[in-house]
Amino acid sequence: MNNTYIYLVAFSGILALIFAFILAKDISKQDAGNDRMKEIAGYIHEGAMAFLNREYRYLAVFIVIVAAIIVMFLNWQTAICFVVGAIFSMVAGYFGMIVATKANVRTAEAARHGQSPALKIAFSGGAVMGMSVVGLGVLGFSILYLIFGGNSVYLTGFGLGASSIALFARVGGGIYTKAADVGADLVGKVEAGIPEDDPRNPAVIADNVGDNVGDVAGMGADLFESYVGSMISAITLGAVVFTTGEGILYPMVLMGIGIIASIIGSLLARNSKNPNPQKALNSGTYVGGIIVIISAAVLSKTVFGNYKAFFAVAAGLVVGMIIGKVTEVYTSSDYKSVKDISDQAETGAATTIIAGLAVGMKSTVVPIILIAIGILVSYSVMGGFGDAARGLYGISLAAIGMLSITGLTVAVDAYGPIADNAGGIAEMAHLPAEVREITDKLDSVGNTTAAIGKGFAIGSAALTALALFASYAQAVNLNNIDLLNPVTLVGLLIGAMLPFLFGALTMESVGKAANEMVEEVRRQFREIPGIMEETTKPDYARCVEISTAAALKEMILPGILAIVIPILVGILLGAEALGGLIGGAVATGVLMAIMMSNAGGAWDNAKKYVESGVHGGKGSYAHKATVVGDTVGDPFKDTSGPSMNILIKLMTIVSLVFAPVIVQYGGILINMFK
Amino acid sequence: MNNTYIYLVAFSGILALIFAFILAKDISKQDAGNDRMKEIAGYIHEGAMAFLNREYRYLAVFIVIVAAIIVMFLNWQTAICFVVGAIFSMVAGYFGMIVATKANVRTAEAARHGQSPALKIAFSGGAVMGMSVVGLGVLGFSILYLIFGGNSVYLTGFGLGASSIALFARVGGGIYTKAADVGADLVGKVEAGIPEDDPRNPAVIADNVGDNVGDVAGMGADLFESYVGSMISAITLGAVVFTTGEGILYPMVLMGIGIIASIIGSLLARNSKNPNPQKALNSGTYVGGIIVIISAAVLSKTVFGNYKAFFAVAAGLVVGMIIGKVTEVYTSSDYKSVKDISDQAETGAATTIIAGLAVGMKSTVVPIILIAIGILVSYSVMGGFGDAARGLYGISLAAIGMLSITGLTVAVDAYGPIADNAGGIAEMAHLPAEVREITDKLDSVGNTTAAIGKGFAIGSAALTALALFASYAQAVNLNNIDLLNPVTLVGLLIGAMLPFLFGALTMESVGKAANEMVEEVRRQFREIPGIMEETTKPDYARCVEISTAAALKEMILPGILAIVIPILVGILLGAEALGGLIGGAVATGVLMAIMMSNAGGAWDNAKKYVESGVHGGKGSYAHKATVVGDTVGDPFKDTSGPSMNILIKLMTIVSLVFAPVIVQYGGILINMFK
Repeated sequence: MNNTYIYLVAFSGILALIFAFILAKDISKQDAGNDRMKEIAGYIHEGAMAFLNREYRYLAVFIVIVAAIIVMFLNWQTAICFVVGAIFSMVAGYFGMIVATKANVRTAEAARHGQSPALKIAFSGGAVMGMSVVGLGVLGFSILYLIFGGNSVYLTGFGLGASSIALFARVGGGIYTKAADVGADLVGKVEAGIPEDDPRNPAVIADNVGDNVGDVAGMGADLFESYVGSMISAITLGAVVFTTGEGILYPMVLMGIGIIASIIGSLLARNSKNPNPQKALNSGTYVGGIIVIISAAVLSKTVFGNYKAFFAVAAGLVVGMIIGKVTEVYTSSDYKSVKDISDQAETGAATTIIAGLAVGMKSTVVPIILIAIGILVSYSVMGGFGDAARGLYGISLAAIGMLSITGLTVAVDAYGPIADNAGGIAEMAHLPAEVREITDKLDSVGNTTAAIGKGFAIGSAALTALALFASYAQAVNLNNIDLLNPVTLVGLLIGAMLPFLFGALTMESVGKAANEMVEEVRRQFREIPGIMEETTKPDYARCVEISTAAALKEMILPGILAIVIPILVGILLGAEALGGLIGGAVATGVLMAIMMSNAGGAWDNAKKYVESGVHGGKGSYAHKATVVGDTVGDPFKDTSGPSMNILIKLMTIVSLVFAPVIVQYGGILINMFK
Repeated sequence: MNNTYIYLVAFSGILALIFAFILAKDISKQDAGNDRMKEIAGYIHEGAMAFLNREYRYLAVFIVIVAAIIVMFLNWQTAICFVVGAIFSMVAGYFGMIVATKANVRTAEAARHGQSPALKIAFSGGAVMGMSVVGLGVLGFSILYLIFGGNSVYLTGFGLGASSIALFARVGGGIYTKAADVGADLVGKVEAGIPEDDPRNPAVIADNVGDNVGDVAGMGADLFESYVGSMISAITLGAVVFTTGEGILYPMVLMGIGIIASIIGSLLARNSKNPNPQKALNSGTYVGGIIVIISAAVLSKTVFGNYKAFFAVAAGLVVGMIIGKVTEVYTSSDYKSVKDISDQAETGAATTIIAGLAVGMKSTVVPIILIAIGILVSYSVMGGFGDAARGLYGISLAAIGMLSITGLTVAVDAYGPIADNAGGIAEMAHLPAEVREITDKLDSVGNTTAAIGKGFAIGSAALTALALFASYAQAVNLNNIDLLNPVTLVGLLIGAMLPFLFGALTMESVGKAANEMVEEVRRQFREIPGIMEETTKPDYARCVEISTAAALKEMILPGILAIVIPILVGILLGAEALGGLIGGAVATGVLMAIMMSNAGGAWDNAKKYVESGVHGGKGSYAHKATVVGDTVGDPFKDTSGPSMNILIKLMTIVSLVFAPVIVQYGGILINMFK
């Protein structure tokens, strides 16, 4: 089978990028509102760019060092793939952020003319991020595939590059956004008694920048990593199972079709006139999903002569969609869990915390069972429990299925922070109440889509990590990873512990960074006269600077741990121990991610539910209790929880990339005792 | 090799029981104080007995049903062992509780004459529990071993019996004690403004009963289970490795020696004149540990002709002791973590919660690494990484080492609630301030020993579960449990999720039960006139009744899950999936247990630290924040955390007992697709 189809796949990536450019051009042409709005939007834009520029300087150093290590221990081809992966992810993030920080103010302005035009701009902004992710992902991957003649060993470097950026964007971004948010709230709302999004609050711009940094760039890099990872896993395993190339053709073409489906879905959602924004967004996702499902079936029959691959793909896609829905059930105030938490708020903060943690823990059950079903179905339809290699390839196809409509998922997800920002700008620019009403409505839909998006991100991280885990085993020539072997057991225990450590470190980082922000905001109120009277502007840039510096400093330790520990365990205890480590880390990483994200989301909505008037409403004893829950939930859902996705994927891809080193030197400690 | 030595081992068990009887007799002879004290102690005693009687009635039904199931699917011999295991654990708990509820009031009375006499009685009370556990454990095991000719398959039933009682005692007891504690505090301290341990609080007796139910009987049953489990694992694996019986002789004789060492250590601690109670208790533990270590070495050389077994035993014992010490570092206000939490209390409840959770998560790192080292050392010294069966036997010897001085560990641990109760009685009976000072000092030492004991209980549960896991694999004829097999992976994910579910269920149970208690206390204050003026007594019995009923009701669902899920997964997905499930459950179970216990302990001591005068002391903003932390920590450290120990051991022993069923019918779902 020749490689012609790869050009077609690459072309779909180019299409996505063209679509993204058209959307971006269209957004630029929209009215950016009055001078006040432009000024505020300018601050946010500058702040976001300041963060990205600083982050990318750090990243440049990091990339050079890691590339050098790769050249030293592996080969220059992998290093090139690594650098390309990193750069492509950075470009996607950069482009997405530029457009998102243009779309926010234009969404606010469009809201003067109604909900549909506002939704159109906000969603278009999100779609630019989504299309950049899939476009650059597919394009980069295809080009490298062609250059290196399909050598999947080199291509793992592309995944490592994507993972490295995701680490910075998601963990650093998560710390940034919550430091700003918590800092702004603690001094502004609690101490100074000014409302949220008040321009007198020095941290208000940092807070708005944080929405972009964490939820646009961070989420984008996270899914870019999953997207690329699923492709790497599928072609690594596919090349082994099918020697004539169908094993690679099928997932690659499906990713191309996924892009087309995402473009069509985006156009539908963008131009929907449905008065319910949630339904407008859903319609696009459903249409995109259906196109992929049908294509997967036709393609499966064409390429393999049967529907086995289709069932694996469908299993992944369906599981991903249901996990998103389940997330909503545990975090939306329309359902029982959130109401239970707000009931517990009647007896204070302690019972609110206990109830929220219990909801988070319980919410792991269904997603885990769904992932289990996804694994069993995709494995057994391909391999029938007899053929392990085919079965594992089936799991990678499930990941492909889940991620095929990434373009749409990211678009819907990145729409949220743009709408949120638009609301902030409307507030700060004192736009009429009816404008704020529209942006609030769009924002509240954004909260739901964010919850669903988080569930999807976790599910896809889990499946991608498991698929890469299978690739790892193949790369280190392991036919089994035996839990009765004590080193595997030790690896499992250490791996299972790492998400706990990672969670602790990231939560503490947010605490430290938020404290610095609190000090700075207090200082400005104290030392800069006229802030409260709005005669002098606060020093927004200084707050942006603090969040930026803290985020980048605080992510170094967890980042190093995620990269060094797998290699260290592999070298000391061997490839099988490392396999155990990955297994343990994926298991608890997924659980912690679900628990923390959902507990955080549930607390957030319990607070909003009480604010809507129940249990005494705003200012009541119950409300204060839910505010405590929400504040605990902030680092849970926006920093530590999402960081787990990165942790499990990064550790797996590090193991995969350095597999040759581990094969050669692995297990020196164990060998000493043999 | 004949079985003569078993009689000697059994005799050591009888010795322990004789020692326990002598101590109990001696306690009974002590002065129980004035009428007021006797009356209060009488309420506590009656309440404790009421709980046990009711619990044991439930248990009788449970035992009959499970025994019938065992007869139906396995054989009558295992059923007999099961019933004996259950009854022996119940007898140990009953006896320990009777004596503990006698020792409390006598400790208070003795405190009139100084610290040493008070310590002597409190420790003696704890030692009765400790000696009952090891005496009945060894005796029951030895007798059944002789009756069934050393058939280890039948003897697993003994472990299941012990586990079942532990489930009721630890989970039910944990719910009981926290429902009473939280209920008493919320209405008494917060609403009515009366101090802790005030006789006007209707829930005060239930609270004091709870200390006995949770920390005496619950802890005793937990360690009885570990103790028995480690023996079962050692003889199951030992019989396979050494066909001439040394593999059984060594651990059994060592357990006998451990009893003698515990008696000697107890005598030393009990009669110590050291003015520092902590040092008095430590001296006994160290001497006991040293005796076991030396004996293990001599015995190893004698039985095996080398020191390999000794190293395995020593590894377990040393790891157990260090884990206890590490627990102290994270939960004592002498160290940084607790101080950090109280610093965070300055900015309110939310930051206190985040800091405490971070401490709990971080505190998992060192214990996991220690357990990992324990596994690697004990495995490699016995099997040298070449011989899996010998290596796994080494792990079981590590568990034996850790548990050999269980008599002492339980004694030191059960001393705490007795001292705590003594303080409560002194308060309620209005004894002079200097008496209360002594009981407070003994109580504060008890808090530290409780933290250490919890760490030890978790470590021993982990090693016991891992040792039983190895026995399980052998029982179902698995030579490897392959993580690359999708069913193992699915088992792992489901197993890892179960502790999250278990944690959620038990936390919610405490919440529900505490709410019922709050309602009842409010009702009594409202409906019974004269309580506040101390002219009428509150209805203590009603509160005891509520805690009892709630505890027993709320433990049914988690209990059923722990028993049914392993069997279900084994039947549906097969023995290997069940192996994965156990691996996953042990990994996250240990992590959650450490995290929850230590976070809870750290919050508790952060509150006490603030109460000592820092950050504004009692009543300050920071103090209120630490009270929230402490309340969240209550179910963490006394209900959900310790329940994890039970969960992982129970699921493992259930799998081991039902191994023949799983071998015969296992994997029906998978076989359908093969």
